[in-house]
Amino acid sequence: MVKVTVWNENRHEQKNPVVKEVYPTGIHNAIAGFLSTAGFETRTATLDQPQHGLTDDVLQDTDVLIWWGHLAHNEVSDEIVEKVRQRVLNGMGLIVLHSGHFSKIFKALMGTSCDLKWREAGERERIWVVNPSHPITKGLPEYIELEQEEMYGEHFDIPAPDELVFTSWFQGGEVFRSGCTYSRGNGKVFYFRPGHETYPTYHQELIQKVIINAVQWAAPVERLRPVYGNVQPLEVLASK
Amino acid sequence: MVKVTVWNENRHEQKNPVVKEVYPTGIHNAIAGFLSTAGFETRTATLDQPQHGLTDDVLQDTDVLIWWGHLAHNEVSDEIVEKVRQRVLNGMGLIVLHSGHFSKIFKALMGTSCDLKWREAGERERIWVVNPSHPITKGLPEYIELEQEEMYGEHFDIPAPDELVFTSWFQGGEVFRSGCTYSRGNGKVFYFRPGHETYPTYHQELIQKVIINAVQWAAPVERLRPVYGNVQPLEVLASK
Amino acid sequence: MVKVTVWNENRHEQKNPVVKEVYPTGIHNAIAGFLSTAGFETRTATLDQPQHGLTDDVLQDTDVLIWWGHLAHNEVSDEIVEKVRQRVLNGMGLIVLHSGHFSKIFKALMGTSCDLKWREAGERERIWVVNPSHPITKGLPEYIELEQEEMYGEHFDIPAPDELVFTSWFQGGEVFRSGCTYSRGNGKVFYFRPGHETYPTYHQELIQKVIINAVQWAAPVERLRPVYGNVQPLEVLASK
Amino acid sequence: MVKVTVWNENRHEQKNPVVKEVYPTGIHNAIAGFLSTAGFETRTATLDQPQHGLTDDVLQDTDVLIWWGHLAHNEVSDEIVEKVRQRVLNGMGLIVLHSGHFSKIFKALMGTSCDLKWREAGERERIWVVNPSHPITKGLPEYIELEQEEMYGEHFDIPAPDELVFTSWFQGGEVFRSGCTYSRGNGKVFYFRPGHETYPTYHQELIQKVIINAVQWAAPVERLRPVYGNVQPLEVLASK
Repeated sequence: MVKVTVWNENRHEQKNPVVKEVYPTGIHNAIAGFLSTAGFETRTATLDQPQHGLTDDVLQDTDVLIWWGHLAHNEVSDEIVEKVRQRVLNGMGLIVLHSGHFSKIFKALMGTSCDLKWREAGERERIWVVNPSHPITKGLPEYIELEQEEMYGEHFDIPAPDELVFTSWFQGGEVFRSGCTYSRGNGKVFYFRPGHETYPTYHQELIQKVIINAVQWAAPVERLRPVYGNVQPLEVLASK
Repeated sequence: MVKVTVWNENRHEQKNPVVKEVYPTGIHNAIAGFLSTAGFETRTATLDQPQHGLTDDVLQDTDVLIWWGHLAHNEVSDEIVEKVRQRVLNGMGLIVLHSGHFSKIFKALMGTSCDLKWREAGERERIWVVNPSHPITKGLPEYIELEQEEMYGEHFDIPAPDELVFTSWFQGGEVFRSGCTYSRGNGKVFYFRPGHETYPTYHQELIQKVIINAVQWAAPVERLRPVYGNVQPLEVLASK
Repeated sequence: MVKVTVWNENRHEQKNPVVKEVYPTGIHNAIAGFLSTAGFETRTATLDQPQHGLTDDVLQDTDVLIWWGHLAHNEVSDEIVEKVRQRVLNGMGLIVLHSGHFSKIFKALMGTSCDLKWREAGERERIWVVNPSHPITKGLPEYIELEQEEMYGEHFDIPAPDELVFTSWFQGGEVFRSGCTYSRGNGKVFYFRPGHETYPTYHQELIQKVIINAVQWAAPVERLRPVYGNVQPLEVLASK
Repeated sequence: MVKVTVWNENRHEQKNPVVKEVYPTGIHNAIAGFLSTAGFETRTATLDQPQHGLTDDVLQDTDVLIWWGHLAHNEVSDEIVEKVRQRVLNGMGLIVLHSGHFSKIFKALMGTSCDLKWREAGERERIWVVNPSHPITKGLPEYIELEQEEMYGEHFDIPAPDELVFTSWFQGGEVFRSGCTYSRGNGKVFYFRPGHETYPTYHQELIQKVIINAVQWAAPVERLRPVYGNVQPLEVLASK
């Protein structure tokens, strides 16, 4: 059974009554809830826990880590970020949601600024499937419509994704590469755009389906990390 | 100097007074005109010429071929299509415009249906740059706005592009991968979406700039076609 | 349960006693055998059966089609090839083995010549994993060594793969992109290089593991084919 | 005219008489020499200069930066590395050579460990062109043979390259993705494998040709960095 840890900054929920109302037990528990129902073994972790809840044991016992952060990216310890990065290179899947585009871990794995255009105007988003052969699109219609979301617009300063799965249309005139996959070492990374804290996005069934599919897709491939460093030849080194 | 052949079906221009007014000398001459001004050596070719104007000599003497077709894809001879395909594999660049997505040559090089959603409603299109490091985006602003265009919407049934350069937003709610590059053999292919025959799209300066940049990008790399077939070993085949 | 059809030309087995000895019941049955043991529902089909064993019913009932051909590519009916291609676009997985690089179906899906260098000298091949996060590499060591194989060398005239999974080293001095994935429409395609008919390659456990993994990977994603063609707007088309 | 800065650690040359003999004026001057002859405006910079020779003015005045380092990656200041990274995101090309795979700047831009297998045994390397349409392969034969090089072997822990241009064969039995392109922000990055300090690799004409081609390819596209941050809608945000 795939083991998922849902990490959430969990600050908006403490400060903003609107967010508290939409996610009474926090975004992490909302996500862990539907993942648990889907049959995954789930736990949660939050910023204010010791080591942000991401101890070596937790990371080692996690197949797929989900990341939601926004206000407090800078409060995440560099040491923990580096541990998460190493765990990804060793095979753990990572799903970065929405404002997590600016998290230390996503920026460290991408190498770019991960910057974008944004606007909070409660406008309509339509998330189009552009790769219908991809397992993350299983059971989805051609697009997912969200009546109200924050806008994220191009240019999104990321490396060209290995696979572009979704592209968003926004009412205000922008587009956005909203579902992007990457491999990093033995691990897989999926960025998924929607999920502004004041809208009930993670209660939407199709959004849940995407995240469930993404967990399945990002689960580690059972194999050892490659051998690196100095090696002996596999063939006799004779002259030509 | 890069030698460009602009191929046009040239049928709408004969039948539809609206198109005739927008492109009095045909889409091919409109495109050849600004390419010539940009310093390329240009010629045109059309469907109703013998061999569609694409004789062996013409193809051999063409660095980059531009293709516009719509009504009469099926009238293009399979033999000529195969010659164009071979020429692309041998290094000739190919720029496929708009409704050329359904041309025999594009479908033959892609392997997929190249189908899409469409609507003629004179709506607004906004073509966003999603790869600002790409030479085809030289000198462009962040997006190109076209007040009236035909809509093309996802899913666009093409192979995942080697490089996604542009993505379009449409007023009616759709998105589209509107600038896609591919390599095929020694040749390069660029698909560029806009250019419905009833709108003055190819008179737009920024659209012209894209096509000029694309010609530069698609010009053949000077090198021989690789050797294929049976070969002798480059190393002594001793036992381990 | 994933339903696999193993298609084999089955001609070498009839003509060449060496091949007959290596694969007494044909390459198709060798492959179907280990896939069946792995838990897939398998059937076989061969060139000389009516419709090459690929009736509409068989294709419709196939999740993943495996293709081995060499001597008789031209005897495969264009009509059947087109049916297979349509079935791939509709979601069926396709695994093309070894000399199948020159099959009509692979060339039709790739758009290129699919040509390569080759040599039959019974030399050593070492197939290196270059993407350790890919599900097709599950349970594999860093490389698979084959004591005797036909050499295939670059340049391999294929589109740049969506994902490059394996790269081969050959004793005679060549390299080859020997494990390549592509998406085409709703379907997935995997090309896997090894499997010359005179060597017991498909009896090798690690080669079997790759093919088993590839079948899992290529199994269709449950979703409808996108809607194509003329569509109504999803938004009101007002002026700006 | 494209302005190139060739950065070299320049330590082996001071310590090792073998290297001193192969590159009497340093690797940087060897490279700057042939680039200058090829018509580029070149300068050099080395680790032991103030700010490693990479002042803000130098970086601002550099179109393409070439990077060779090995022994002293850790002595490169984090502040300078970050400035180089920002300059790449703003459009500067970066060509990372050989042991530069472990430089701070390459690792920062890739996000992975950039680790690999290696062996110093003076063995033969054959660098195969696997993308004959790529401008970096202009004028090259099918492969470049180096009689003696250090071996680098897979798995090379990098993100899947945007374009794979070269793959190396090594006498000892390994393969390596030895020419890889990436885009990062407005900038382009090329990693090129060969160039161990004790061999005359950068005196080899074909290796020089690759680096010359790569400089042309990596030169910045003239365009502004995209606008990021909060933006106003481009369309009226009416209800549906």
